[in-house]
Amino acid sequence: MIKLYGMSGSGNCYKPALLMSHLNIRYQWIEIDVLGGATRKPEFLALNANGKVPLLEVSPEQRLAESNAMLCYLAEGSDWLPQDQWQRAKVMEWLFFEQYSHEPNIATVRFWIKYDGKRRLWRDRIAQTQEKGYAALTVMEQRLAQSDWLVADRPSIADIALYAYTHVAHQGDYDMNRFPAIQAWMQRLSAIPRHLPMDDAE
Amino acid sequence: MIKLYGMSGSGNCYKPALLMSHLNIRYQWIEIDVLGGATRKPEFLALNANGKVPLLEVSPEQRLAESNAMLCYLAEGSDWLPQDQWQRAKVMEWLFFEQYSHEPNIATVRFWIKYDGKRRLWRDRIAQTQEKGYAALTVMEQRLAQSDWLVADRPSIADIALYAYTHVAHQGDYDMNRFPAIQAWMQRLSAIPRHLPMDDAE
Repeated sequence: MIKLYGMSGSGNCYKPALLMSHLNIRYQWIEIDVLGGATRKPEFLALNANGKVPLLEVSPEQRLAESNAMLCYLAEGSDWLPQDQWQRAKVMEWLFFEQYSHEPNIATVRFWIKYDGKRRLWRDRIAQTQEKGYAALTVMEQRLAQSDWLVADRPSIADIALYAYTHVAHQGDYDMNRFPAIQAWMQRLSAIPRHLPMDDAE
Repeated sequence: MIKLYGMSGSGNCYKPALLMSHLNIRYQWIEIDVLGGATRKPEFLALNANGKVPLLEVSPEQRLAESNAMLCYLAEGSDWLPQDQWQRAKVMEWLFFEQYSHEPNIATVRFWIKYDGKRRLWRDRIAQTQEKGYAALTVMEQRLAQSDWLVADRPSIADIALYAYTHVAHQGDYDMNRFPAIQAWMQRLSAIPRHLPMDDAE
């Protein structure tokens, strides 16, 4: 059975779990104590030299890091990754946007506030990072005001990747009332049969 | 003809140019004055809502952002993107590693020092960021000590993506003498026929 090493509450770890739920792929969740330093220990570094979760173990010799690489691998051949070459390119564009412009600003502020207790101490740093996070959310809002889904006319792994941290952005004090199209899209995505809430990923 | 909006000296903009050289695809380079604020102007935001270069214009209605999404799109069907499903997954893993763990630390310090004159002023910030950059280089070194190329036994877009900022990391005061396997790999990559030096991308 596929093993997914993850940390509960992590949006990156939630992504492959949510996709595997839709694809009806069973997996074993292995909880890793990231905050306790488990990803820096030699046992874990032997599995992933980059010392991060999630980590997907497809077989004892085949392990894959990077949540969005997992989405591409798992979705291949399914409706969640289009066959059309241009649509695939746009899916990839959103996946890299997520890791470069969205996650480092939205997941980070959520972590500082929810897990690290830095709401008051890091007020300036949070405000600066939120400015970039709001810019990323505005890019999504513009697209979703015109289209039900990020790419083409049905949900794809681009939607799963962006949903993971967007649906908990309010935990980083983001005011999501500014983004009605994103809110409607989150409702559409979570209404798809076999949707898995984040807390049930583990 | 394909248009590539870019900033000369940018590793992200160099990536699709280098791949198109190998694939013998002609393109028109359109220089964008990023430091002068051109990517924040309405004309450019109408082309890419995320306000970044590179931007690839395949046709007047088809534009693609995100350098690594361009590599996937352009390389499809060529030897630069493997057909094997697991090898493709590993290529994707390196591409996301590059944008999340490598570029934000290596390209950023280079920018601060080479373009922004912050070597002295931001000494602490540079040291903190270099620590993460060295960690990313160490992950590459481990792999390249065992293998000529990042994935499988021939060069792929993973190598192009990682080469872009690694080969100019010394401009961010990274001591590359620590990484002999990376140095040998850079020599191998730049010796491939049709290699395009960064300064010739524009």
